[in-house]
Amino acid sequence: VTHDIAVIPGDGIGKEVVPVSLDLLNVLADIHGGITFQFTEFPWGCDYYLAHGEMLPKDGINELKQHEQIFLGAVGDQNLVPDHISLWGLLIKIRRECQQVINLRPVKYIEGVSSPLANPNDFDFMVVRENSEGEYSEIGGTMHSGPDEITIQNAVFTRKAVERTIRFACTLAEERNQKVTSATKSNGIVYSMPFWDKIFAEVGEDYPKLEKQSQHIDALSAFLVTKPSSFDVIVGSNLFGDILTDIGAAIMGSIGIAPAANINLEGKYPSMFEPVHGSAPDIVGKGIANPIGQIWSAKMMLDHIGYPELATLLFNAMASTITSGIKTPDLGGNQTTEEVVDEINKRLLAD
Amino acid sequence: VTHDIAVIPGDGIGKEVVPVSLDLLNVLADIHGGITFQFTEFPWGCDYYLAHGEMLPKDGINELKQHEQIFLGAVGDQNLVPDHISLWGLLIKIRRECQQVINLRPVKYIEGVSSPLANPNDFDFMVVRENSEGEYSEIGGTMHSGPDEITIQNAVFTRKAVERTIRFACTLAEERNQKVTSATKSNGIVYSMPFWDKIFAEVGEDYPKLEKQSQHIDALSAFLVTKPSSFDVIVGSNLFGDILTDIGAAIMGSIGIAPAANINLEGKYPSMFEPVHGSAPDIVGKGIANPIGQIWSAKMMLDHIGYPELATLLFNAMASTITSGIKTPDLGGNQTTEEVVDEINKRLLAD
Ligand SMILES: CC(C)[C@H](C(=O)O)[C@@H](O)C(=O)O
Ligand SMILES: CC(C)[C@H](C(=O)O)[C@@H](O)C(=O)O
Repeated sequence: VTHDIAVIPGDGIGKEVVPVSLDLLNVLADIHGGITFQFTEFPWGCDYYLAHGEMLPKDGINELKQHEQIFLGAVGDQNLVPDHISLWGLLIKIRRECQQVINLRPVKYIEGVSSPLANPNDFDFMVVRENSEGEYSEIGGTMHSGPDEITIQNAVFTRKAVERTIRFACTLAEERNQKVTSATKSNGIVYSMPFWDKIFAEVGEDYPKLEKQSQHIDALSAFLVTKPSSFDVIVGSNLFGDILTDIGAAIMGSIGIAPAANINLEGKYPSMFEPVHGSAPDIVGKGIANPIGQIWSAKMMLDHIGYPELATLLFNAMASTITSGIKTPDLGGNQTTEEVVDEINKRLLAD
Repeated sequence: VTHDIAVIPGDGIGKEVVPVSLDLLNVLADIHGGITFQFTEFPWGCDYYLAHGEMLPKDGINELKQHEQIFLGAVGDQNLVPDHISLWGLLIKIRRECQQVINLRPVKYIEGVSSPLANPNDFDFMVVRENSEGEYSEIGGTMHSGPDEITIQNAVFTRKAVERTIRFACTLAEERNQKVTSATKSNGIVYSMPFWDKIFAEVGEDYPKLEKQSQHIDALSAFLVTKPSSFDVIVGSNLFGDILTDIGAAIMGSIGIAPAANINLEGKYPSMFEPVHGSAPDIVGKGIANPIGQIWSAKMMLDHIGYPELATLLFNAMASTITSGIKTPDLGGNQTTEEVVDEINKRLLAD
């Protein structure tokens, strides 16, 4: 079988961590034997914008839709292009037009990272984030000027999107440790969050065996710091999921290791795999970008396309590399991107 | 001088930590010599609601407005009354009707607490939270039913409110360490947050000496965990300030110690001082409620009404009590509320 993957290195360190991850995917294909990856690279991002006045060509989204999956590095570099252009023009555009309605992000303790937590314990949870609407809405505007200026921002919550997100989370919890926590703020945000809570209660009835709880986003954010090992699956809106997964990345020891899958539920369009970190312009060219977030995203892609054994192989090689002390400076190590990847490669081949 | 303070113990442990804090305030008045406190207690809260069908009487807000300041414990107990009734009926009602437009919350490392952070360092920053509008808005609603059901939630940002909040933060930073960080999410929330950013830039021009930066709420939440000592003053919207201060409470070691001031800027109506924690129904009656959040709120009230020396006296007695190991279970100690207060009292009298 040939897997046809669209690759968008994007900006900054995306161009450093994507190629090395493709190499590892090829190694895994060889190990497996029966599969090959066909990578089609698209040079879209801020440089492309500076040259062409758009983040991707007019038929770019259609081109992407011809591929099986999308493997993306990082998008955005405020020094070159304002974020609202680069992100809405490429990253958020792909998420929406390819109907990647779920954003799935694991938060897992890896032995050997220097976590900012005193007792990182063995936390291991998944955040399921609504990825298509909510607080990220283009409905709203500003009126009046001078001292009377006022801006209204709409957050849009449809039953359809909320329901499928919560259902995805509950199904995932059934396959894991039977516990789902819903992020809310119904004590302060009085329309959207009670609506979210209502659907969480309804959908929850279809999952009688699950332990279900709601936590306000403020308290929940604090709990990720004080008792992260008490969670299994957390489900939240677009904004809440965004905040929780960055806190998740922080307690994991570095945003450089956190991965994400943007999932198209019906498989009609490609899903997209990308690390949580950005393009990190400050460390570009230094050879010290942490490749783990990108590699872990490749691991999520392998799971998604049906190779859980390869995914596990990659994860173990990656995690044991970190545990053995071979890691980039952001994790408290002093290895380069290349040295980390070489070690992972070695461990894959040794297996 | 007599200071006329309205006291609302409220619900749960509010009734345990408020009285002991009033005792300490009386001790401080004696130490000072020239002042007395006159406390007028209002029995409003969930019990009141169960007896009278309302969280406070019709003229309750007017009664409060006759007093100089408000000292509040905790409001809300989901087991008795739904949060949207108890909180919007009392806590948020007071904040809004008394025009307490700024919520000010210190986040400060105290030696001797068991912080969840491996290296808590010496963080010490203030969060200035917009307290009157933003994401906490009663504009919005639901339409259609069944699978088409949709809810729109409006967030309302007025120049007036955003500007005074940011100005307050900048002025505070001038008195402190010259650095202000604005919480944004303009890369995802495309109307309200660019509006916020624009006003931050404009107001910032009036404070040329300050170091000014913006951080997206997701990254900023993570930074409170990974590098809290890099902040001086953080300013954010109602929701963002809410989330950041709970993370702040978490890194301080316990939500039980975090205080807040809800400030009426013109002094036309009373300001309100309340801990960040809730009513904690699970530990009511056990005598182990942490009184520090409430006592630190009293300290903020002393600062506000013009007794910085008394405020410092109280803070030092309180902090040194914790550092000496006399603390409640949530901080890793095994003392009772009363034992902690007795020790603080002793230290005040010894000074
Ligand atoms: C109880 C709730 C409405 C409140 C808020 O979000 O403002 C609380 O979390 C706080 O921070 O004071
Ligand atoms: C860059 C930004 C728009 C994006 C988001 O908030 O979705 C990022 O923070 C993420 O989490 O993928």
